[in-house]
Amino acid sequence: MGATYRALCKHGYASLRMQDIADESTKSKAALHYHYESKHDLLVAFLEHLYEQFEDDIGADCGDDPATRLVTFVEERLTPRGDGQKEFQTALLEIKAQAPYDEAYRERLAEFDRLVFDRLRSMLQTGIDRGVVDDEIDPEDTAAFLVEHINGAQIRHVTVDASLGAARNRLRTYLTEQVLTGSEAAGSGE
Amino acid sequence: MGATYRALCKHGYASLRMQDIADESTKSKAALHYHYESKHDLLVAFLEHLYEQFEDDIGADCGDDPATRLVTFVEERLTPRGDGQKEFQTALLEIKAQAPYDEAYRERLAEFDRLVFDRLRSMLQTGIDRGVVDDEIDPEDTAAFLVEHINGAQIRHVTVDASLGAARNRLRTYLTEQVLTGSEAAGSGE
Repeated sequence: MGATYRALCKHGYASLRMQDIADESTKSKAALHYHYESKHDLLVAFLEHLYEQFEDDIGADCGDDPATRLVTFVEERLTPRGDGQKEFQTALLEIKAQAPYDEAYRERLAEFDRLVFDRLRSMLQTGIDRGVVDDEIDPEDTAAFLVEHINGAQIRHVTVDASLGAARNRLRTYLTEQVLTGSEAAGSGE
Repeated sequence: MGATYRALCKHGYASLRMQDIADESTKSKAALHYHYESKHDLLVAFLEHLYEQFEDDIGADCGDDPATRLVTFVEERLTPRGDGQKEFQTALLEIKAQAPYDEAYRERLAEFDRLVFDRLRSMLQTGIDRGVVDDEIDPEDTAAFLVEHINGAQIRHVTVDASLGAARNRLRTYLTEQVLTGSEAAGSGE
């Protein structure tokens, strides 16, 4: 899975060959083919692996205050992590662009979308219950709005090289001014 | 250009061949190759053609009230037009996903992005001047926020089949509640 990540960063999705993945690993191309019939099957397994990692990651504790947790969660979606992040986002966008033609990709991507949506909705509901999120917002609508927005900021960063930091600031402003109720929304301190 | 549109809707971008475009037109593949050296060159010309059309279209008159003009403009970005719209958006997403690897695509897509951004910024400024847009918003930041959001709603519609109508309603609510000042923001009447 690590080799697949590195190969995607280096070659992108469209021109990726099983040999490129083998070159990044200690396994031969034949050994890869023993486990995965095609590049497609390997990438579906890779998306499943990413999903599991992502599920573990976003369960990670980021404090008890629901306003800070919400802001941190949203900002993390728009914060590059480590080397090759932009290259990887680029390859992931290629996979997203194939999703309409490919049910297995589409199902995996829908799982990611659903997970982020569910987390946001539940954080917004907790925030309303604790009085730090404006109780006039609809948690479902606002969660969907945030998922759309995160998607758009990512794609705009990758396709026309728009600043991810500026997008993060704009979305933080949206959260503090339109979603959160008060000064609890001081942001993640970064 | 019409043949390219139809061929993209039918075959998508990745598997598109010059022959597929010739099949949709009255020209032979050889005739296409006479004008365009490769599929890439033809698609760059196609993006330029789309841009010119788009520039004409979005100059179209939609009334004098700046609030209605803003809401209409934003909603039109999230309203399917005619047959094959989703298929075409899908093919366009494939081209967007290639942009990081392809300067000619990237430049053309950046022109679209810039045009939408400039129009939004100028409509927001006019709205502030005429008192229908909240003068506490920054036209530049809000225009960028809207461009990101439109991108995200489009990609989510194409990749995980999220409802475009629901996204349009959410964005209209954002405009009427957070950007426009009052009841002038009655929407486009659809």
